[in-house]
Amino acid sequence: MSRRTKIYEGKAKILYEGPEPGTLIQYFKDDATAFNAEKKGTINGKGVINNRISEHVFTRLAHIGIPTHFIRRLNMREQLIRQCEIIPIEVVLRNVAAGSISKRLGIEEGEPLPHTLIEYYYKDDALGDPLVAEEHIACFNWASNEEMHDISSMAIRINDFLCGMFAAIDIRLVDFKLEFGRLYDGDYSRVILADEISPDGCRLWDMNSGEKLDKDRFRRDLGGEEEAYREVARRLGLLAGEENGPGEVLDLSTHRSRLRTPPKK
Amino acid sequence: MSRRTKIYEGKAKILYEGPEPGTLIQYFKDDATAFNAEKKGTINGKGVINNRISEHVFTRLAHIGIPTHFIRRLNMREQLIRQCEIIPIEVVLRNVAAGSISKRLGIEEGEPLPHTLIEYYYKDDALGDPLVAEEHIACFNWASNEEMHDISSMAIRINDFLCGMFAAIDIRLVDFKLEFGRLYDGDYSRVILADEISPDGCRLWDMNSGEKLDKDRFRRDLGGEEEAYREVARRLGLLAGEENGPGEVLDLSTHRSRLRTPPKK
Repeated sequence: MSRRTKIYEGKAKILYEGPEPGTLIQYFKDDATAFNAEKKGTINGKGVINNRISEHVFTRLAHIGIPTHFIRRLNMREQLIRQCEIIPIEVVLRNVAAGSISKRLGIEEGEPLPHTLIEYYYKDDALGDPLVAEEHIACFNWASNEEMHDISSMAIRINDFLCGMFAAIDIRLVDFKLEFGRLYDGDYSRVILADEISPDGCRLWDMNSGEKLDKDRFRRDLGGEEEAYREVARRLGLLAGEENGPGEVLDLSTHRSRLRTPPKK
Repeated sequence: MSRRTKIYEGKAKILYEGPEPGTLIQYFKDDATAFNAEKKGTINGKGVINNRISEHVFTRLAHIGIPTHFIRRLNMREQLIRQCEIIPIEVVLRNVAAGSISKRLGIEEGEPLPHTLIEYYYKDDALGDPLVAEEHIACFNWASNEEMHDISSMAIRINDFLCGMFAAIDIRLVDFKLEFGRLYDGDYSRVILADEISPDGCRLWDMNSGEKLDKDRFRRDLGGEEEAYREVARRLGLLAGEENGPGEVLDLSTHRSRLRTPPKK
């Protein structure tokens, strides 16, 4: 591999200069972090899985008219994307209470919210990505009113689409995070979906067992992260040579020992 | 004083049953708390001053058409108010960064905000009054959209009015907290301003010296709380027999020793 210019290295991804102006290469690492990087670790093969899942989801979202930064997958761990200016707001969609909102507002984890809730967090690691309201976004001009309108409209459509997509494979979409960027065309810019959509930034619960199929396995030391990520990819039909669809019951209860002595296949 | 039915006791006030249905008596204590009641103390005479200041401000706000719970002051520490159902949202208006927002968003204290910022906090001591957005308020139905419209419109008008009122006496209104309530008339209800407006819930800085004339003196152990509260009342023309208006320069730098050996007047 020839030496490339690294543009940015985040907790789970690296961005390299792309082959043409206006493009970047997004590389998916196996590194996992939680609690604002206080907890660090590795989930073997995560980068490969997330690259595939994110490709799949972004491609399907483009089909319903959501503009995204995704161009095409290049290899196991890399995808070609459009270079955009990341809007410093993490958009969180919640269908069921879990994680920070349960703690913050005293709602039991697993309780369905009265209706889908959209939340905004200011992207700033040093501040711990604090929750903000649209008033803060307007006050500090992190995004324009027009951009926020586009962002919230897209976010709600994406939630509906993903709820349907995951429901079809017996997964409940509890919550997930989105990031958006500005794609410039001269003086004009438009908002596109950026970053990734994968079990790193979603809470995905098996509809029947309630088993967590996402990064909470890592955050909460539940073990079985690799199997969980693979299971999502498998159900989405993304693992060649493995059975797809909800199919058999997933049993993650013994994954710790299975991880130590992986079964030969 | 005859025995009365206590309806509610808060950190700084007590509510008693009023003389007529639909009325309450609001009693102002000298108790002071900070950091969600982790810090407790007393500011001598605070209740008397806050009763007077709040009467003054609510009366003036009624003159510009802001409906409030205030009926009339009864004595040194009590006022008669309309009974309303408190909406569980603390409304904070900020003109200059200070306190929690400086910490939360990394803005230097004293930096003027690009424009006035309205924030909402969910009133829940056990949760530490967490910041929320309008989306949370709608999702959990803490207030209706119509009520939030009325609240934000009134809050902005109140901020403009108070900025003017305090500017006239050389005080900068940095930020302040409001609470609103529902006044029922049969099935119908309307939003009115409730609680109090006093140096307990405002940040008030002397325009010339920058000296704090509010509860931050207590929160931050600056001393001179009594003098600061009295100074605000004095400038508002509420202390009989003392000079009113901005007048002489306030020097709070020696208040600690002055508090120990109060000068005879």
